Amino acid sequence: MSDVARLAGVSIKTVSRVVNDEPGVHPDTAERVLAAIEQLGFRRNLGARNLRRGMSTGTIGLVLEDVGNPFYSVLTRAVEEVARTFGRQVLTGSSAEDPARERELALEFCSRRVDGLIVVPAGMQHGYLVPEMRAGTPVVFVDRPAGDVVADTVLVDNLGGTAAMVDHLAGHGHKRVAFLGDAPDIFTASERLRGFREGCAKAGIPYDEKLVVMGPHTDAGVAGAVRRLVSGDDPATALITGNNRITIMVLRALSTLDARPALAGFDDFELADLLDPPVTVLAHDIGAMGRAAAELLFARMEGDTSPPRRIVLPANIIPRGSGEVRP
Amino acid sequence: MSDVARLAGVSIKTVSRVVNDEPGVHPDTAERVLAAIEQLGFRRNLGARNLRRGMSTGTIGLVLEDVGNPFYSVLTRAVEEVARTFGRQVLTGSSAEDPARERELALEFCSRRVDGLIVVPAGMQHGYLVPEMRAGTPVVFVDRPAGDVVADTVLVDNLGGTAAMVDHLAGHGHKRVAFLGDAPDIFTASERLRGFREGCAKAGIPYDEKLVVMGPHTDAGVAGAVRRLVSGDDPATALITGNNRITIMVLRALSTLDARPALAGFDDFELADLLDPPVTVLAHDIGAMGRAAAELLFARMEGDTSPPRRIVLPANIIPRGSGEVRP
Repeated sequence: MSDVARLAGVSIKTVSRVVNDEPGVHPDTAERVLAAIEQLGFRRNLGARNLRRGMSTGTIGLVLEDVGNPFYSVLTRAVEEVARTFGRQVLTGSSAEDPARERELALEFCSRRVDGLIVVPAGMQHGYLVPEMRAGTPVVFVDRPAGDVVADTVLVDNLGGTAAMVDHLAGHGHKRVAFLGDAPDIFTASERLRGFREGCAKAGIPYDEKLVVMGPHTDAGVAGAVRRLVSGDDPATALITGNNRITIMVLRALSTLDARPALAGFDDFELADLLDPPVTVLAHDIGAMGRAAAELLFARMEGDTSPPRRIVLPANIIPRGSGEVRP
Repeated sequence: MSDVARLAGVSIKTVSRVVNDEPGVHPDTAERVLAAIEQLGFRRNLGARNLRRGMSTGTIGLVLEDVGNPFYSVLTRAVEEVARTFGRQVLTGSSAEDPARERELALEFCSRRVDGLIVVPAGMQHGYLVPEMRAGTPVVFVDRPAGDVVADTVLVDNLGGTAAMVDHLAGHGHKRVAFLGDAPDIFTASERLRGFREGCAKAGIPYDEKLVVMGPHTDAGVAGAVRRLVSGDDPATALITGNNRITIMVLRALSTLDARPALAGFDDFELADLLDPPVTVLAHDIGAMGRAAAELLFARMEGDTSPPRRIVLPANIIPRGSGEVRP
């Protein structure tokens, strides 16, 4: 700020007035201040970064898959709360799992000069963010890592958690366990599939590709898959679902069938404990994930230049009944 | 990235090498790439300068009660989608039902020069927004009207919908119907209570104040109230809940009791159809509410100066079983 004041030949107070849109500055003076800001911004990256901090827009951007999904709405609320303690507001946008839309939103937020960005990546290519990161906009990836950029990331233990679900079901005597996961190009889905495979190996039960059904899913598709999985000569006696949306699709499918396979789902969800039987889930703290991402972001915004960090949050089985059915 | 490559006259691969600090790039070339990055950053600066001069910031503000509540997350998603078609981004903030926080958020958004504002009011006093509205920032109230300002408003038919629930339960023979509503200083809660009272009168069943329990609620409080309502000499045989949160609290309370009163709840909610018994609800289209509010806002932003409008959306009973229990 003092560089700008010196270059524009005005007081720091005047610079502050201009960048905060306060009244009482002559248009010519404002023009000179803005020119100085631009000149310094053009001249030196580091300077631009400090400057940017000085003329903070007071907003951070949050790119989600779908704010209408309870998972992401809890995440949003947690980010909002941390942002509030730092006096920042949150811009949100839903990518709808479309990498082009994710990029469009993220760059749109950057062009609006957010002070930082939290991204649930839809795609696997994030080179487009590198110039922004270099120019001083910190970016934290949450729920899934960036595809091709080393950056701060907050994840849940997808692999270990899914393996723990296999172990739990195998412990109740199940040997034919099916896995219904999301689209395999989504990081969390492929990690959970890996966890499923490793869990089968560790628990000493067969991993059978015929019992793996990956998305993207529709209600009708899941209904057909569940019908097939639980019937025939060698049916699955237990199902593992890869996220809260798929669990609910499976519950809807099972409500029309006589079969009662055991069920354990990744992600806890509202009313899981009030269903009949109550649904066993792998729970993790979505709010904690949002808070960790936001806290990491604000640490970066305040000058933390340590190497990028990867935080992996734990997930724990909550046995409620559906996963404790014996084959 | 391709913009940078074009400006620097190098390949995208080279840009990628420079920003990732990979070896094999001539220092002069690296210098050119960094200059291009900065120059593009510089252009964004110019953009920011126009913004500060009072042109569109390309954002609208959305003040909610709690984005973590599925009701509001669906509303947010709908607003986001309309905003997107107009090339705008959405700033969101949760008031947590605190009028001071609502005011703080709304004014904060205004000071960030949002092009328009959608508010789910927490309080009943909105005179603080009049200077902003006069200065040309359109404001649309959604779910609840402004307390003391004539402004565009999108509501659901709180009164008629609740009366219809009473009629539905009375039609199944219930004469002792209880109402569990939200805090009576919330517009929707007081309107629904009015609807309950009018519904009792129309259906010819007694309105008994002992059967009315208004919030704010806690799980423990609702559990105690439900226990009291369904026991004693002259128990309620049916319950009406005033919103999705209260319905879920009541379901949780009922799961620990033997009594099985009929139940009908304002707001549909996920899994209502999979509970035992499935929950009869008064459903309305939350997405439609968000879209109507956003479309009204964008019409105002594009110059519609017609008198303020009040849009009331319909609500319809979905009978699923819990409301069709006979006394």
